[in-house]
Amino acid sequence: MCRDFSIFLEKREMFKKIVIACPSRRTAEKWAAAITENDQEFEVEIYPEDTAREKTEFMLSFLPDPEVFKHYPNLKVVGSLGAGVRSIIDNPSLPKSVTVTKVVQKEHQKDMAEFVLGLILSHTRRLFLYTQYKADKMWKPRSYQSAFEVKVGIMGIGAIGSVIAQLLDKVGFQVTGWSRSKKELGAIRTFYGEEQRDVFLKTADILVCVLPLTDQTIGILNRDVFEKLPHGAFIINVGRGKELVDEDLIACIDEGQLSGAALDVFHREPLPQDHPFWHHEKIMITPHTAGDTHPEKAALEVIANYKAMKTGQPLSHTVDRAKGY
Amino acid sequence: MCRDFSIFLEKREMFKKIVIACPSRRTAEKWAAAITENDQEFEVEIYPEDTAREKTEFMLSFLPDPEVFKHYPNLKVVGSLGAGVRSIIDNPSLPKSVTVTKVVQKEHQKDMAEFVLGLILSHTRRLFLYTQYKADKMWKPRSYQSAFEVKVGIMGIGAIGSVIAQLLDKVGFQVTGWSRSKKELGAIRTFYGEEQRDVFLKTADILVCVLPLTDQTIGILNRDVFEKLPHGAFIINVGRGKELVDEDLIACIDEGQLSGAALDVFHREPLPQDHPFWHHEKIMITPHTAGDTHPEKAALEVIANYKAMKTGQPLSHTVDRAKGY
Repeated sequence: MCRDFSIFLEKREMFKKIVIACPSRRTAEKWAAAITENDQEFEVEIYPEDTAREKTEFMLSFLPDPEVFKHYPNLKVVGSLGAGVRSIIDNPSLPKSVTVTKVVQKEHQKDMAEFVLGLILSHTRRLFLYTQYKADKMWKPRSYQSAFEVKVGIMGIGAIGSVIAQLLDKVGFQVTGWSRSKKELGAIRTFYGEEQRDVFLKTADILVCVLPLTDQTIGILNRDVFEKLPHGAFIINVGRGKELVDEDLIACIDEGQLSGAALDVFHREPLPQDHPFWHHEKIMITPHTAGDTHPEKAALEVIANYKAMKTGQPLSHTVDRAKGY
Repeated sequence: MCRDFSIFLEKREMFKKIVIACPSRRTAEKWAAAITENDQEFEVEIYPEDTAREKTEFMLSFLPDPEVFKHYPNLKVVGSLGAGVRSIIDNPSLPKSVTVTKVVQKEHQKDMAEFVLGLILSHTRRLFLYTQYKADKMWKPRSYQSAFEVKVGIMGIGAIGSVIAQLLDKVGFQVTGWSRSKKELGAIRTFYGEEQRDVFLKTADILVCVLPLTDQTIGILNRDVFEKLPHGAFIINVGRGKELVDEDLIACIDEGQLSGAALDVFHREPLPQDHPFWHHEKIMITPHTAGDTHPEKAALEVIANYKAMKTGQPLSHTVDRAKGY
């Protein structure tokens, strides 16, 4: 075999291809750029304009179309572009054999924590209210709470929740955490399981939900939970929209048991125009913006996972599809 | 001398009286309660319903009427209820001989820092904008900045400014500080004096003003300063209203040099109904609420200062009336 042909073969073997399938062209382009900037040998294509689909083994995706994966007979790995993976693992066109990975990124976790901190301070320092007052040219100082006076309970202290808890603790809030299985979180008091849930709820003037969406967490933010919180508690949901029972939230706010809520996730996104949340003065709405992943920082992990796939090594941050996260 | 009479005389000598003069009856009552809770021997009266003014040596005050102090011929000490003392030291009825003290309270400093942090996150995470979007039922995710990407410059790193700087540093912002005289602030980069001001301004994507009001700081937030900031900088004023040239702020925002501002203090408070700030969509307004003092925590210092006055000892946190803070 002549030398040139062997180099040609070697190059063919090194052929690196990733397809990105997500609703936002802009997001896809950012990821594509981040990957090729780190390794120019990658050919990154964006669905549905990608070519030679039978050669595609590795995809990146977020909120994919229901049929997307059936076009890829040799698919081995789908990397979620975010922390949420439900839309991928529940996708009817995804074969059971495909490995799913998620983004676990300290910048993303920190972004989530900063966002929650911003929402909490906007509540405790009345910034939401003053924004409304401004529209009416109303000068009306209101009392506020200092961090040391406020108890914040974090529901879900996994990778993201624990970073949120630690940041709030650092700023001076009284923080507690709850999770399905037992977790230690330094000096932060933690609770776990069904039997400790009600005790945990009593500790939360502000309840922050950052749980993954599973069969157990669908509808977990309901009247039963709200009534166990201290009177006047405030709800923050940066988990998933389906964890909240919308009617229960509105009813408990209107009855005065809850003082309000800040919601970043919803059953349907964008939040439909006729949804009552839009009109409720005690509910703050943000458009699923708690934390983006940083492609420029995540690209190296994608590349490493690609290599691991090619060489049969274990991948980083794989999803347990049975558990759902 | 019989024993009863000597006890009577002793009690007379212990006679402890404080008068509170401030615009808010509620604030005055909170301070009165906090003092008598700590020492029941105090008689605390609230101006203008107070009695026997010739006996009053010690007052607590905030934003007093121009003539208030002339009613007290034996006044020795006026303690400001807040960090700002201008309305007391510039009061035409205050004799030069009277000692003025200010509140220096770690809870108050921390409250100021939390408020500034809340404003910064509301800006970087677009919470002000989303509150406006909500009114229009608009779902429109916008890009945001993570703390590590944002440079915050603190103008004024005295007792309060340094606590703000340290909290922002802890949360992960890139923080710098500037003050009139040289100050060290741990690992935080500091600048001082006129000659380092322009270099400092270049470091501030967000400029936080927490300067005391002096002859040097009146109008310090003006076009000249705004134009030296990075393009698109954001202004936060929690210092004093007179430090800002209102027209320059509006012009620099409208020209695009500044991206907006959050103002907690104004030339006149309440902000007059016809002031253009009320209508400006890029200016957030809060009603001088960055930090209240906590009377329940400050009462002991007031009592200690009262005793120091009585026994001729030095008082805590006296104001240099020439410097103005």
